[in-house]
Amino acid sequence: MKIVETVQELQNLIKEAKRNESVVGFVPTMGFLHEGHLSLVDQAQKECDLVVMSIFVNPLQFGPNEDFDRYPRNFERDSRLARNAGVNILFYPNVKEMYPTESAMKVIVHEGVSVLCGKSRPGHFDGVATVVLKLFNIVTPDRAYFGMKDAQQVAVIEKMIRDFNLQVSLIGCPTLREEDGLAKSSRNVNLTDVERKEAVSIYNSLQLAKKLIAQGERKTERIQEEMTTFLETNSSGTIDYIELLTYPELNHLEQLEGKVIIAIAQQYSKARLIDNIVLEIE
Amino acid sequence: MKIVETVQELQNLIKEAKRNESVVGFVPTMGFLHEGHLSLVDQAQKECDLVVMSIFVNPLQFGPNEDFDRYPRNFERDSRLARNAGVNILFYPNVKEMYPTESAMKVIVHEGVSVLCGKSRPGHFDGVATVVLKLFNIVTPDRAYFGMKDAQQVAVIEKMIRDFNLQVSLIGCPTLREEDGLAKSSRNVNLTDVERKEAVSIYNSLQLAKKLIAQGERKTERIQEEMTTFLETNSSGTIDYIELLTYPELNHLEQLEGKVIIAIAQQYSKARLIDNIVLEIE
Repeated sequence: MKIVETVQELQNLIKEAKRNESVVGFVPTMGFLHEGHLSLVDQAQKECDLVVMSIFVNPLQFGPNEDFDRYPRNFERDSRLARNAGVNILFYPNVKEMYPTESAMKVIVHEGVSVLCGKSRPGHFDGVATVVLKLFNIVTPDRAYFGMKDAQQVAVIEKMIRDFNLQVSLIGCPTLREEDGLAKSSRNVNLTDVERKEAVSIYNSLQLAKKLIAQGERKTERIQEEMTTFLETNSSGTIDYIELLTYPELNHLEQLEGKVIIAIAQQYSKARLIDNIVLEIE
Repeated sequence: MKIVETVQELQNLIKEAKRNESVVGFVPTMGFLHEGHLSLVDQAQKECDLVVMSIFVNPLQFGPNEDFDRYPRNFERDSRLARNAGVNILFYPNVKEMYPTESAMKVIVHEGVSVLCGKSRPGHFDGVATVVLKLFNIVTPDRAYFGMKDAQQVAVIEKMIRDFNLQVSLIGCPTLREEDGLAKSSRNVNLTDVERKEAVSIYNSLQLAKKLIAQGERKTERIQEEMTTFLETNSSGTIDYIELLTYPELNHLEQLEGKVIIAIAQQYSKARLIDNIVLEIE
């Protein structure tokens, strides 16, 4: 595995690979890798000749009061995990390399961001879209791998590929979970022991919603209420949102039907966790 | 010359060319071609293996009260001129092909657009940057050719290449002029006969500024005043702006020094004309 810190060196390596008609797979991350990231590498390896992973904690997608500074970082561990997983090139730029000058422009996302994390984190998806556009332009991947835990991010990137005519295929990969069901996340290390135990109730409330739907419940409000009561009873975190929306359009609906996302964000003392499931309802 | 109307067909042709390591040159236009455009083709031909020209009047860069509807169009004449000039592929998409769905996002330019045309045409450069980004992603050119008549556009695209890590070289080409000095422009056909004669005063006032500077004048305000008086005396058009700024940063300065752009926009009854010169001042 090659560790590359500059855009120029990365582009040279990729141009060489492309001359040999290599299919380039790309796994963009913010590091502090867990099995979720590694499962993306796994899938990329099966489908591509060259697997590029980036590790970059992008300041542009963090709000002024968010956790940019305490976002967990451990490059030594990350690079070992990436190497073992089969990453061929690990791109690890610093902020100056990604943003060498004051930017004159950025991508603004104006659709599908008034709900879920877009509502709680204004400007977040502008920052995500801008950095992913830059990374796509640097890496020029044939295929890019994203985890479905960030389902709204997947929807935004899918729309960016469509709106800006990007020549890359997006692959959304399933959420990986701890044994008790908690979605794997770099932010889980910022939970206290008590919170870690409580946090499984996010997963359990999604399962509760699934059960209610299986039993015939279709009223969005009714399911939201049950999930809220469950979460409030079983954890000390503050509910940021519990939403049931069409997917990938992310529109509200009173009666559930078709492809639907059930999504939660909950704030603990030092970590904001998100999770979701996507269901096809008959 | 191949005329191509769909993104898909164009991308197939370009992928084939790239497999043969062809250097791709790109000349984006809004059609109604004149010698200015053809000089871009000429330069592209000298430096590239494959010359792609696009003709697309982009609704996104026109304001609600601007001349999108009466922007001159003549595809038959354009395609003849393009073929004779040596264009290999003429990309001629319709609006539906470029914007098949309501867009979820766009590029917003927030630096260098509070002056010149950016000030008079709010949102104009957002529309320019967005469509040029799309065209770059579709054509994937090695080199792209733009006329320096739209100097602010050249500055914006240059910044977009830098900010979004686009892998394309921008070539800014000199403004072509009619015999009397009027800058060639597709919009010149929308001038009345009287206005056409008056419009040369735009060029002449730029020459006046150049003369004043050669004589030692360095005060921006003084030169602006002289140009204003000259234009008001010699034409019936309304002055939109006369500005002297650093180039390419486009910052104001009281005393001229370094690389400077002197730029004019003037509104006639059915055409808004722009022109500029860039000078190095010792």
